[in-house]
Amino acid sequence: MNEIKVGLIGFGNIGAGVVRLLQENAQTVQQKVGSGIILKRIADLDITSDRGVSVDPAMLTTDVNEIFNDPEISIVIELIGGYEPAKTFVLKAIEAGKHVVTANKALLALHGDEIYAAAARKGVEVQFEAAVGGGIPVLSAIKGNLSGNRFSSVFGIMNGTCNYILTRMTQEGADFEDVLKSAMELGYAEPDPTFDIEGVDTAHKLAVLASLCFGTKIDFNAIHTEGITAISGIDIRFAEQFGYRIKLLAIGKLTDDRQLEVRVHPTMIPLRNPLADVNGVFNAIHLTGDFVGPVLFYGRGAGQNPTASAIVGDLVALSRSIAAGVQNRRSAPLGFLDNTITTLPLKPMEEIITSFMLRFTAQDQPGVLAGIAGVLGKNGISIESMVQTARHNGGQAVPIVIKTHEAREGAIRTALAEIDSFDFISEKSRLIRIEDNLE
Amino acid sequence: MNEIKVGLIGFGNIGAGVVRLLQENAQTVQQKVGSGIILKRIADLDITSDRGVSVDPAMLTTDVNEIFNDPEISIVIELIGGYEPAKTFVLKAIEAGKHVVTANKALLALHGDEIYAAAARKGVEVQFEAAVGGGIPVLSAIKGNLSGNRFSSVFGIMNGTCNYILTRMTQEGADFEDVLKSAMELGYAEPDPTFDIEGVDTAHKLAVLASLCFGTKIDFNAIHTEGITAISGIDIRFAEQFGYRIKLLAIGKLTDDRQLEVRVHPTMIPLRNPLADVNGVFNAIHLTGDFVGPVLFYGRGAGQNPTASAIVGDLVALSRSIAAGVQNRRSAPLGFLDNTITTLPLKPMEEIITSFMLRFTAQDQPGVLAGIAGVLGKNGISIESMVQTARHNGGQAVPIVIKTHEAREGAIRTALAEIDSFDFISEKSRLIRIEDNLE
Repeated sequence: MNEIKVGLIGFGNIGAGVVRLLQENAQTVQQKVGSGIILKRIADLDITSDRGVSVDPAMLTTDVNEIFNDPEISIVIELIGGYEPAKTFVLKAIEAGKHVVTANKALLALHGDEIYAAAARKGVEVQFEAAVGGGIPVLSAIKGNLSGNRFSSVFGIMNGTCNYILTRMTQEGADFEDVLKSAMELGYAEPDPTFDIEGVDTAHKLAVLASLCFGTKIDFNAIHTEGITAISGIDIRFAEQFGYRIKLLAIGKLTDDRQLEVRVHPTMIPLRNPLADVNGVFNAIHLTGDFVGPVLFYGRGAGQNPTASAIVGDLVALSRSIAAGVQNRRSAPLGFLDNTITTLPLKPMEEIITSFMLRFTAQDQPGVLAGIAGVLGKNGISIESMVQTARHNGGQAVPIVIKTHEAREGAIRTALAEIDSFDFISEKSRLIRIEDNLE
Repeated sequence: MNEIKVGLIGFGNIGAGVVRLLQENAQTVQQKVGSGIILKRIADLDITSDRGVSVDPAMLTTDVNEIFNDPEISIVIELIGGYEPAKTFVLKAIEAGKHVVTANKALLALHGDEIYAAAARKGVEVQFEAAVGGGIPVLSAIKGNLSGNRFSSVFGIMNGTCNYILTRMTQEGADFEDVLKSAMELGYAEPDPTFDIEGVDTAHKLAVLASLCFGTKIDFNAIHTEGITAISGIDIRFAEQFGYRIKLLAIGKLTDDRQLEVRVHPTMIPLRNPLADVNGVFNAIHLTGDFVGPVLFYGRGAGQNPTASAIVGDLVALSRSIAAGVQNRRSAPLGFLDNTITTLPLKPMEEIITSFMLRFTAQDQPGVLAGIAGVLGKNGISIESMVQTARHNGGQAVPIVIKTHEAREGAIRTALAEIDSFDFISEKSRLIRIEDNLE
């Protein structure tokens, strides 16, 4: 039978991994698809740098239109990342009647609707397993064998850079800035790590995951997104004293009244939670379905090889479908058929209920604790336990750390604002959310 | 569009779960498939017992031919288990041109070849996600998005009954027989638990898993299969002293010279291994692919609801494929196209190299340790450490426990046979394999 011809846009680190996988495992891929998957053309602005893989120079082009205009090419892989020109290229590929494989979570989180609609009009598919969890095949599982479930939650560790930094901060007692610097030197953080450390990359992934789990459109800008830049060594040590570890979690929950919680923030999880032991650049994603119950997926969430695995997995799926001669290709990039996608209301962050670790920095003087406890009580927040470090010889600022029972986030914010107006408070008070019963 | 009509053979616990899922989540399924999946007929010898789900009595029949002969039924679910009449029924369904969904690992492990060949001849599909890992969608992942990988290993905890028993033995210091009895009373073990506790069920699952990972036929009877019946509380406590936990593992490895290791036995794994914390009825399956690296799947490995999730996932996949109007259905029940399946040679158990915990029961007299150590040394087995319990007042049998460095299993067996011939040995010596670096 005929070979499946593929065009690749973006010949960076991940693109080179895809090229290498298709070369090294050509036989394996052919055993699955029945025909070879042939990379016919690679477009990039830079076609001279050495990518560590050997390709026929005639395959390289700086003109992306050579891919769109090639009638032999049936699948286009987009690996340039970011919003533009990725979006234009993806839409052009669809317009040219090509199936699309992309790892671009930013693009899908913000412009997924437009891309899926264009694909539906042209009768082509958009596959994006590599967009979440690197090589972990979690999106395929949600869209595939777990299809019969109604999901109540999805949460996990989805950014390797943040998890690497938090792991080293935890294990070495090191501070954020020092570990970030070292991570950049070692290549575990991008030269501009803003999207990672501010939680934006995790929020992109949560938007994609939650849309698949719950069959809903999600307004990306409405996702509560907090990164790890404000986490200090002192937070990590106090969390340990209470029996918790701090991880940057993405959390999506469907409430009983069908509101959606979607939030990304540093989270204290009990040491017994399996996610507490997910360290370094590993990712773990936890789902709960009404029939399957809890399911956890764990693996490498980024990197050249795992990402290439996910992209080639998508190529294999599309190639099988092309080879099978599908007659009625129906549009369901989220697993749900397009016309069944809803827009669930998002639960306002102020309404979210968790317990909290609150850290106050106060002058060491009489009446401080009474003042803080009074404001908390007035706002209906009850204290479960408290840690106060040894008193200094008067006058100095000391940390007071309180673990609350469950409380409304809105009440906590009101209370902190009032407490921060006390004269004895010398720094903005901090909150870290605690999830005792994630499931 | 037309509805997909399904026939169910076997209306037991799992069958009732499938019925309930299709009832409760009918809308969810329809949102994925585009049409309803309608259970048209249920065949069972007993059609009067209450299964806790409400079905139209007209749907029930004791004559399985009413399913095979119904031209409206395009998918048959086989849930009677065991070899016969399940095999006859599956082959009849295929002969009648129906796709088959089954959870029957015993059938597939022993007669998969014949069933897959029959399905290929008739151009129908056989799906069996529920056969391994309950609701965990690991088979779909291997056949699907991980397709681009060459796997080097697959291992895991795949039998909830054994894991429940070992977990309670570990946590309570209880003995095997007591926990088994309690497990049977609580419904965590079958009335006849032989296949579970002797490792046979785990070996069935390993045969299926390894055939998918490595694209090979496997002679089920050649799988080294040991259950947990000989594990005692004393083994568990000595393993803990050495820093290990005992789990019943299924292990499949492809060696560098393309021999296949497939074995099921109680295994000591380091406490830091994530599988050490997989407790109770949970399952976990670990894969290593050359590009994806390590991936771990964790969830409920058995039970009515998780198994129903996997079965309905297969129904959804087949229904989508039917609805898509596939023209060239190619036979690849193992992910690999049938004509690419090989038969890899199995590595003889005697050639397997691991380290070992050896437990001797010897009279407490001079020269015992010298005798044991001498035989081990003569067979090229070196001792890493030893635990000897406090000496009694002479004459009584005491345990001597030795952890070896890596050694050939054949050498260990030869040494144990020779040691067991010593007069001072009062019970058959025991070995438990240690896997320090599973990956």
